[in-house]
Amino acid sequence: MRPFRKHTSPTDRSVVHLLRLAEARLAIESINIEIDSGRFASKAVAGLPLTIEADIFSDGHDLLGAAARFRLDAEDWQEVPLVFLENDRWGAEIIFQRAGDGEVEIIAWRDMFATWQKDVAKKIAAGQDVGVEIEEGRLLTLAALPADRGDVAELRVSLNEAEGLELLELLRSTGIRTAIAAHARRTDLTQYGRALSVQVDRKLASFSAWYELMPRSHAAEPGRHGTFDDVIARLPYVRDLGFDVLYLPPIHPIGHTNRKGRNNSLRAEPGDPGSPYAIGSAQGGHDAIHPELGTLDDFRRLVADAAKAGLEIALDFAIQCSPDHPWIAAHPEWFDWRPDGTIKFAENPPKKYEDIVNVHFYGESIPDLWLALRDIVLFWMDQGVRIFRVDNPHTKPFPFWEWLIAEVRRSDPEVIFLSEAFTRPKVMKRLAKIGFSQSYSYFTWRNTKAELQEYVEQLYADGMRYVMRPNFFTNTPDINPRFLQTSGRSGFRSRLVLAATLTGNYGIYSGFELCEATPVPGKEEYLNSEKYEIRDWDFDRPGHIKDDIRLVNRLRREHPALGPEGDLVFLNFWNDEVLYYARRERTSGSYLLCHVLLDPHNVQEGEFEVPLWEFGQPDDGAILVEDLLHGNRFTWHGKTHRLRLDPETRPYAIWRLIPEDAAS
Amino acid sequence: MRPFRKHTSPTDRSVVHLLRLAEARLAIESINIEIDSGRFASKAVAGLPLTIEADIFSDGHDLLGAAARFRLDAEDWQEVPLVFLENDRWGAEIIFQRAGDGEVEIIAWRDMFATWQKDVAKKIAAGQDVGVEIEEGRLLTLAALPADRGDVAELRVSLNEAEGLELLELLRSTGIRTAIAAHARRTDLTQYGRALSVQVDRKLASFSAWYELMPRSHAAEPGRHGTFDDVIARLPYVRDLGFDVLYLPPIHPIGHTNRKGRNNSLRAEPGDPGSPYAIGSAQGGHDAIHPELGTLDDFRRLVADAAKAGLEIALDFAIQCSPDHPWIAAHPEWFDWRPDGTIKFAENPPKKYEDIVNVHFYGESIPDLWLALRDIVLFWMDQGVRIFRVDNPHTKPFPFWEWLIAEVRRSDPEVIFLSEAFTRPKVMKRLAKIGFSQSYSYFTWRNTKAELQEYVEQLYADGMRYVMRPNFFTNTPDINPRFLQTSGRSGFRSRLVLAATLTGNYGIYSGFELCEATPVPGKEEYLNSEKYEIRDWDFDRPGHIKDDIRLVNRLRREHPALGPEGDLVFLNFWNDEVLYYARRERTSGSYLLCHVLLDPHNVQEGEFEVPLWEFGQPDDGAILVEDLLHGNRFTWHGKTHRLRLDPETRPYAIWRLIPEDAAS
Repeated sequence: MRPFRKHTSPTDRSVVHLLRLAEARLAIESINIEIDSGRFASKAVAGLPLTIEADIFSDGHDLLGAAARFRLDAEDWQEVPLVFLENDRWGAEIIFQRAGDGEVEIIAWRDMFATWQKDVAKKIAAGQDVGVEIEEGRLLTLAALPADRGDVAELRVSLNEAEGLELLELLRSTGIRTAIAAHARRTDLTQYGRALSVQVDRKLASFSAWYELMPRSHAAEPGRHGTFDDVIARLPYVRDLGFDVLYLPPIHPIGHTNRKGRNNSLRAEPGDPGSPYAIGSAQGGHDAIHPELGTLDDFRRLVADAAKAGLEIALDFAIQCSPDHPWIAAHPEWFDWRPDGTIKFAENPPKKYEDIVNVHFYGESIPDLWLALRDIVLFWMDQGVRIFRVDNPHTKPFPFWEWLIAEVRRSDPEVIFLSEAFTRPKVMKRLAKIGFSQSYSYFTWRNTKAELQEYVEQLYADGMRYVMRPNFFTNTPDINPRFLQTSGRSGFRSRLVLAATLTGNYGIYSGFELCEATPVPGKEEYLNSEKYEIRDWDFDRPGHIKDDIRLVNRLRREHPALGPEGDLVFLNFWNDEVLYYARRERTSGSYLLCHVLLDPHNVQEGEFEVPLWEFGQPDDGAILVEDLLHGNRFTWHGKTHRLRLDPETRPYAIWRLIPEDAAS
Repeated sequence: MRPFRKHTSPTDRSVVHLLRLAEARLAIESINIEIDSGRFASKAVAGLPLTIEADIFSDGHDLLGAAARFRLDAEDWQEVPLVFLENDRWGAEIIFQRAGDGEVEIIAWRDMFATWQKDVAKKIAAGQDVGVEIEEGRLLTLAALPADRGDVAELRVSLNEAEGLELLELLRSTGIRTAIAAHARRTDLTQYGRALSVQVDRKLASFSAWYELMPRSHAAEPGRHGTFDDVIARLPYVRDLGFDVLYLPPIHPIGHTNRKGRNNSLRAEPGDPGSPYAIGSAQGGHDAIHPELGTLDDFRRLVADAAKAGLEIALDFAIQCSPDHPWIAAHPEWFDWRPDGTIKFAENPPKKYEDIVNVHFYGESIPDLWLALRDIVLFWMDQGVRIFRVDNPHTKPFPFWEWLIAEVRRSDPEVIFLSEAFTRPKVMKRLAKIGFSQSYSYFTWRNTKAELQEYVEQLYADGMRYVMRPNFFTNTPDINPRFLQTSGRSGFRSRLVLAATLTGNYGIYSGFELCEATPVPGKEEYLNSEKYEIRDWDFDRPGHIKDDIRLVNRLRREHPALGPEGDLVFLNFWNDEVLYYARRERTSGSYLLCHVLLDPHNVQEGEFEVPLWEFGQPDDGAILVEDLLHGNRFTWHGKTHRLRLDPETRPYAIWRLIPEDAAS
């Protein structure tokens, strides 16, 4: 112990600190929607409940009151009471009615009147005299009710006049409880240290089915370059399959310098169309349209016709430029130049991407490049686009995206950004935190039961679900999953059902419905990829799985359990080749069970547990069940049942459980 | 989709937001020592390493640098590099050399030179021409090294003159690496949004063995009221047992009004001494000494003699007052008065505590009561006291404690506060967050293997260990644990070992060493409790466990694994009546195994696993082991062994594992 340092005498500093701390008597902690110490907004969906929870407590044993205050776009605050859950946790649900920037505050106070009522009740129950307590109740109540308000004047007279048991009855009446709730000062009112931001997106951000196609491969006649008109002709097909979003890779002029040839070869042959990701040529850059696709008017017509068909067009926002992009001449300061006077190509040493150059975002690019890129997005919004799939956002600075998305949302909060960042988990999550409404995921590479369960549980966990909304794409132009390369049709059906039912957003890339999976040998890439050449497809070719797609998209629309509010729990199936899970939605009571065969080659069977316990049923109870593939209804008696899944005929099953009170 | 709102044109607001965001290009997240969004300080110990970890990453693939900056009491900042661990996590250890208020900042940047070195190495390995890259390296390095510094002038000349391979060699030399590390600008330097506070306590806050006694029961002659001189005479006894802290319940004048009699009876008989927790009489209040104990001088002598014996005196800080406390007349505004003119007694309806009245902390008590209470603590600090055990802090406002502890630490940061809050877990944790250095725990009521493992693992978990330091008391004047009431001596020995080896702080209340456990029938209270009467003890009475106490306190001092830096892991023992765990300390290599019998009545045996894997040994490997109870050394061959524990002769075993390189 070191020698004692003489303490200072009371100073202003002590009292100032005292008064500041004393203002927050109650503890408000661990708010579920606070992300990274309030640095980022949590996410909510317009029109759907957002659960708010916080730990709230005070010193001593007094009863507390608590509330969440919330507002959208700095409009008027609304207030909902928080209710006690357990273990000092309080909760409520709030609903933001439209997309925008929400805020939530948490307040709490000591409820002196409720405390008085509780204590008096206990003393009466214990046979104690409560004469003085009744008098205390009178004083407490009179102090709480304003003397100048007509609506409580009569009550104040009664409170002043009543005595003994009559007064006690009055103090325990509903009338006084109502008046107190309306007027009483909130003792020791404490507010959580900061308002919490909430990014309220429209519903499609959390629940959407995407279909991706390369327009140039959709010409009516083989061999021709497809156009926007061809895509318009394809709209009924996509809509009939049940999708919401039609996503197009870049539609801009394609560069010529170092153009890639078929199968990603370094030299293009004459006539090779090049990769649409090598954006920009003498014909224009990110705000231009590749002439062979059509005109801006054609594009606007596509957007409008898609809307009529119930589809939204999603565009690709890929910031790289071809060496022919007009910006290179107009804004050389946005690019990296080498000591030898050449421009620096994109690279990931020792790999080089010679058909692409990257802008840099700092130095002389601030602020003009950022503003220009924002204006590109606003330009396509002017053409009616409200959904952007962003290519490789993790190779551009986080602050750029945070700023861009905020700017765009200020213009229209209904715009949706999908992050295509196949990278490390914390980087992906950061992109979600800075505003991306949806994120590509690792789903494409999660195949075994253990992998799928672990990954999906992570995505549904608290730390993730208020932040990141995964989009489960089965395949993309860049990813021809190894599993599908050998699985055959059964594997496609299973992966479809997993993608469509494990979470709210999913997508397929055209060709998936045809079970197309011919790879570049040994690679996770498509042979003769549409990225480098024009293909021609027969969308009725034998072996397609369009019926399955129509079915799962219909079930997603019809059953709230598969909707944006549905949660998920994995259940026991005693065979690791079958994934078995429940999707359930509380308000509607919608409850589905999904069995999906993970082995695409062999019949698998096993016993599984029907979650009777969720319906208050004992292990030998029974529940009505509907087979959603065939429509028949029957009763499962007992908790344990057996199921056989066959890759040829039945690689999945989806059941609806119907509790007794809903069965009539 | 609602109609499109025309976007605004570029405004100042957009650019201002852009520039602000652009300042923090790197992501710095999830700092392990950030408590409640930075609202509270984390805890560290003077002279011992504090681990700092953060997630740090940027866009793209460039290599990063990162560092933690720290300072104590607003003195100069020091900097230590953070090193990459895995999965974007970085870490370092820092040491605050003395108690005080610490701060930590995290910074990170892109390391352009290291990135250049990495990329060039990859290209060379791939056989690519790097002529232009070497030139880029020259420019990068020249730009990084100041032109006006003599110590790099020669290097700059070489850089300017060298060409080709010679230049490459220079650019990859140690000299340039050193110069760059010393001088290069940190590109995109990003600082975490806030400095994080650290409460640095002295070592005793995290590692201490407490002995509690009621001075009045320690008179040399039976029947007399014990005095401070009697306690002075008891010091060698306490020190011989190996304790660090001697804790005394309140030593202040005891009230007469409604004084409690023996065994908590409502009426005291003449001569009954009353509860020392009914503080205050005509003889004084919280800054006075109960005359029968001695004088202030006697007390100072006790503190000094204790220090000479290697013991510190801990005082009780219990804020309640007896109805005779001088404050009631001097400061009636600090108390609750009832409509009938009486003072409100402490109560927890329907229970009433009529020998105690509580101050209230708000209204007219601000700021004078708070200042007065602080001055009480400062007064006892003036008498040499540096440890306070605080009675029932959870029934007083959190802001009061937060303010009081900050005030006291400003005077002397070596003061330790122990929170006696036996209440709900979040309330206990809040008290730790607002500054209490130690906390009573639920240990006293955790008896089964499952209960103990679950609870101890919670306490060692990340969310807790930077915040709350538990103190495992085996018993207190208020808690005569039901387990000990029937366990007999074996149970006392086991509970001692658990308390002393499961965590850094522990304590016993006098009588424990005698296996005293006579209860008020059916209650968790001691019969004829010292709280209400003077007792007389024979500290040599047969059946005591003083040898065990000496042993465990010695082992705690001798083995770093049991010290403040030791961590804990539970291991497999295939019998639920034996708790088995390792304590280990990395730097020293100290590694202990503890087996503790939980069944006080029956012999229990079973197989257990020796953690050979921690020493790089295969399952059939071997390790040297020392039996710390008997001193013999031998070798355990193989992973699985058998042990028998006997309540009569050997209810616990403690082993030291000696790795090969330390065995010689």
